[in-house]
Amino acid sequence: MAKQTAGPEIERLIALLARLPGLGHRSARKAALALIKRRTDLLEPLAAALAEAASRIVTCQTCGNVDTLSPCTICRDPRRDQSLIVVVEEIGDLWALERAGVVTGVYHVLGGHLSPLDGVGPADLNIGRLIERAAPPVQEVLLALNATVEGQATAHYLTDQLRGRDIKVTRLAQGVPIGGELDYLDEGTLAAAIKSRRML
Amino acid sequence: MAKQTAGPEIERLIALLARLPGLGHRSARKAALALIKRRTDLLEPLAAALAEAASRIVTCQTCGNVDTLSPCTICRDPRRDQSLIVVVEEIGDLWALERAGVVTGVYHVLGGHLSPLDGVGPADLNIGRLIERAAPPVQEVLLALNATVEGQATAHYLTDQLRGRDIKVTRLAQGVPIGGELDYLDEGTLAAAIKSRRML
Repeated sequence: MAKQTAGPEIERLIALLARLPGLGHRSARKAALALIKRRTDLLEPLAAALAEAASRIVTCQTCGNVDTLSPCTICRDPRRDQSLIVVVEEIGDLWALERAGVVTGVYHVLGGHLSPLDGVGPADLNIGRLIERAAPPVQEVLLALNATVEGQATAHYLTDQLRGRDIKVTRLAQGVPIGGELDYLDEGTLAAAIKSRRML
Repeated sequence: MAKQTAGPEIERLIALLARLPGLGHRSARKAALALIKRRTDLLEPLAAALAEAASRIVTCQTCGNVDTLSPCTICRDPRRDQSLIVVVEEIGDLWALERAGVVTGVYHVLGGHLSPLDGVGPADLNIGRLIERAAPPVQEVLLALNATVEGQATAHYLTDQLRGRDIKVTRLAQGVPIGGELDYLDEGTLAAAIKSRRML
């Protein structure tokens, strides 16, 4: 631990900032300094934004997204295709898909992936609610999980759980990313791209 | 700009976090997610710490440090040598010296360095107050400024301003940093280390 040098209020602020992902103790100090130097245009607005987030943001009881409403804005949106549920691991994945603007349906956030070594089993994820939701009018469940060992294991588990229902279970295509150079891609991606090759 | 995907409260939080040094828009999203997921042990304490910092932290009218008191804890400390003022560019430099525990005197924070190209002149820095302070019981002013062109230009300016007073003006030694390998040091450092060589 660094020696305490600033007052206890500032040290406490630095310690909390250092717990954010992407900020170490050194960059947390720089961030704290920037906050103190820019009181009216950064410190006070950020304090207010965090207080508002703490008081207003809730988890959507339907899909697991975070919003100021439950059900969330996406679940309530009448333009969304309620027959398609896109299952993601984390809220960050939902945000990534929304930024891309490629999902017409609604979401379901698992809150992680199965990982027996870390003690994460089916009961630790938001799976029960997904099984409940997988009924008419839902026709398709798209498993948009990470292309990692854990993501794919989770996809297999969910496929088993959803079997026997009149519901199509799909996954994302795997292959060469747009802009990807073959020379820099791993063998697994190249193998998937060859296996799923398409007619031109 | 990234497309807005989360609610306006979350987007506002991300935009503010992205203005912290060391956090880009992408890492600000990760930080916001971590805050939302860890409401009680991170979001709420950080909101409280920022609110407390905003309401309690003031700039020391003597030295320019930040603290909950003015004069600050360091200026008030009777164990500090009030005859030595250590001049630094930024509060972060003061923190670095305090962490090292090597300063017996008190400080003076300029709030930057002279930089004519960026429009920073003497009037934009906390220099007037330093000149006032440079009187008995002060006997030495140590210019602990960065070893950059701007830092050294600022040191020259301050040396001129302090001339003709019965006060010793000193600067930090320059040379090979502890643990430094000659092969990796720049020519300027090596030249300084040769020029200021010491007898063994």
